[in-house]
Amino acid sequence: MSVTFARGFAVGVGEAGIRESGGPDLVIIASDEAGAAAATFTTNRLRAAPVLVAVEALRASGGSARAIVVNAGCANAGTGPGGLHDARAVVSAAALHLGCGPDEVLPASTGLIGSRLPVAAMVATIPTLELRRTERAGTDAARAIMTTDTRPKEHAVTARLDDGREIRIGGMAKGAGMIHPQMATMLAFLTTDAPIGSQTLAELLRPAVERTFNQVTIDGDTSTNDAVIVLANGAAGGTPIATGAEREAFANALETVCRKLAIAVAADGEGARHLIEVSVSGAPNDAAARAVARTVASSSLVKTAVHGADPNWGRIAAAAGRSGVPLDPDRLKVCIGDLPVFDGAPLGFDEGRAAELLRGPVVRLALDLSGGSGNGVAWGCDLSAEYVAINSEYTT
Amino acid sequence: MSVTFARGFAVGVGEAGIRESGGPDLVIIASDEAGAAAATFTTNRLRAAPVLVAVEALRASGGSARAIVVNAGCANAGTGPGGLHDARAVVSAAALHLGCGPDEVLPASTGLIGSRLPVAAMVATIPTLELRRTERAGTDAARAIMTTDTRPKEHAVTARLDDGREIRIGGMAKGAGMIHPQMATMLAFLTTDAPIGSQTLAELLRPAVERTFNQVTIDGDTSTNDAVIVLANGAAGGTPIATGAEREAFANALETVCRKLAIAVAADGEGARHLIEVSVSGAPNDAAARAVARTVASSSLVKTAVHGADPNWGRIAAAAGRSGVPLDPDRLKVCIGDLPVFDGAPLGFDEGRAAELLRGPVVRLALDLSGGSGNGVAWGCDLSAEYVAINSEYTT
Repeated sequence: MSVTFARGFAVGVGEAGIRESGGPDLVIIASDEAGAAAATFTTNRLRAAPVLVAVEALRASGGSARAIVVNAGCANAGTGPGGLHDARAVVSAAALHLGCGPDEVLPASTGLIGSRLPVAAMVATIPTLELRRTERAGTDAARAIMTTDTRPKEHAVTARLDDGREIRIGGMAKGAGMIHPQMATMLAFLTTDAPIGSQTLAELLRPAVERTFNQVTIDGDTSTNDAVIVLANGAAGGTPIATGAEREAFANALETVCRKLAIAVAADGEGARHLIEVSVSGAPNDAAARAVARTVASSSLVKTAVHGADPNWGRIAAAAGRSGVPLDPDRLKVCIGDLPVFDGAPLGFDEGRAAELLRGPVVRLALDLSGGSGNGVAWGCDLSAEYVAINSEYTT
Repeated sequence: MSVTFARGFAVGVGEAGIRESGGPDLVIIASDEAGAAAATFTTNRLRAAPVLVAVEALRASGGSARAIVVNAGCANAGTGPGGLHDARAVVSAAALHLGCGPDEVLPASTGLIGSRLPVAAMVATIPTLELRRTERAGTDAARAIMTTDTRPKEHAVTARLDDGREIRIGGMAKGAGMIHPQMATMLAFLTTDAPIGSQTLAELLRPAVERTFNQVTIDGDTSTNDAVIVLANGAAGGTPIATGAEREAFANALETVCRKLAIAVAADGEGARHLIEVSVSGAPNDAAARAVARTVASSSLVKTAVHGADPNWGRIAAAAGRSGVPLDPDRLKVCIGDLPVFDGAPLGFDEGRAAELLRGPVVRLALDLSGGSGNGVAWGCDLSAEYVAINSEYTT
């Protein structure tokens, strides 16, 4: 279940020939009515044209939106003023098709950096997109935005508020796959029928993204197109969610969907055979714990060790040591799965058992810094020769 | 020519069975007389025992030293209080052999993290080390500290000061090779016969290291044992170098040796076929330029693109965009070799010619941010399936 799970949302999926390999590559996610929207975008200074246009639109509309238009096969990044023009043309065509203003449509693109969108084909395809509300349509949309992802990434939850109202949140994401090199990576789109203001939505999206999508790492390269966008149309009815238990319940549900999608992205990293989950406790604060977890999960030496089922706790400890977070080596504890391997000094441990724990589809590494109450988790994947092969392929 | 090039320095090279594969693994670099010493050490919080002992010794001696004792095959990192004891025992044996105080001997280790030094064998071997002054002895020392390095790394220069004095500086380094995983990486040792105080030496070493060794990246993992140590015994005679043209001449010679060794380390990165040199100009300042260069040189996507001779300028621009340095995409220029590929927007270029430039042993990438007068260079290497194979091998 994906973005069509929340009431009042539909998707249109079509093929505009953007993807060299053919197949659906163009998606519109539309709410029946305009609603609140919030988003987080890449911190890369080379922001793609669709990111710039979406930021503009959210500013112009004051956090209101009707739809998202997404394409795979071309990132529309590094394309200069021409790229901005292209993104606006696609947005205008989508707005015309939906009968709304262009500031109510947020664009997103994924694919090759530096090539231009086939705007004419896209503008011709958009009016033919049929808006559908089925679960199948949601999955079709999640598939259409894939690049070298090996499977669609979707998740949905229902949250029951204290007053008995049922709120639905659904989402889809695309991960770090690259059919061609020069792809831009992470996109996620969420829809909810919760009645909620754009300000509150933005306040809740940011920490959820920080703890989920921002804790995923495949290869350390932040893309030019990263975007997480949530649309909230209020179709569930009732008074807006703002404070108290309602806010809490919504925040938890939102974070759950973000986490599931984020983990799915990490597990489907290029060439990956293992999801690596790094849990850090005992840090000075949560942000520090997340930073340590992210450093360990992104270490090439940790990733290759997991790939080779090698219980190299020294690499895990060394990665923690270079994260920038204060750390007393004498108080550091490291576990591979449930197996303690370091506690201020090397522990004797069953290396066969450790290797076995590293061979599972999900590899759990835990570090306790014994220096505070901060906790954090990061997700990554192993580094394989397939990653190198996928990314060494010639572009043209 | 290595650390025996400067007058008044000798090396002893021996085999203490530290390295599983056998061969020389223990080196003493000794000056005839105690002299000035300066060093830079890893920023990793999990500092290896020899790093802690060397820092202590330099503090106790006030920047004076007689010798360095180095072993390959065991990093003596993550070894707790026992590891500190081991490092001190090795230092004491070397001090006894040389007839100096233990605070005048600086230890360094490279090899597996988490295993203990075979102290008894090392202490028994040290008194048998014959101190030699030949060029051959210098090369033997450079070989003895190799791990999976494919070749020894050594360089030496002569600088002539205005008063006619000839100053010699020689050095050796070991790079990012890993026979076993969990190896610690970079060590470099320099010797000079220049008369120079330890304060001045430290002042000149820091910027030289910042522009050379700190601009090298193989896999983004800062080791627990990184150390650059320079010994200056004053054997060239004359008044100490402190200011003016002499200081300038010495600083240039020191940086030249550091740069040559740093480039040799990058070129011999694990599994590497290409040295990647990234030059950045037009940054707000030199430190910003170095940061951008280092980010591009350490990008997995740039590294795999070079490996596949793929002229993916989008990856180069995207890496620059995520370096944290302010950057205006509209003013960014990117060249592969001498070929402009991006200038605020994609340029048409000869892809065959670009691929050819990427196939050479040295791949030069240049970025101009057009935003200031800061310049910087970083060195890295391509990412290959061999890197993954080397680092996925089982430790035991």
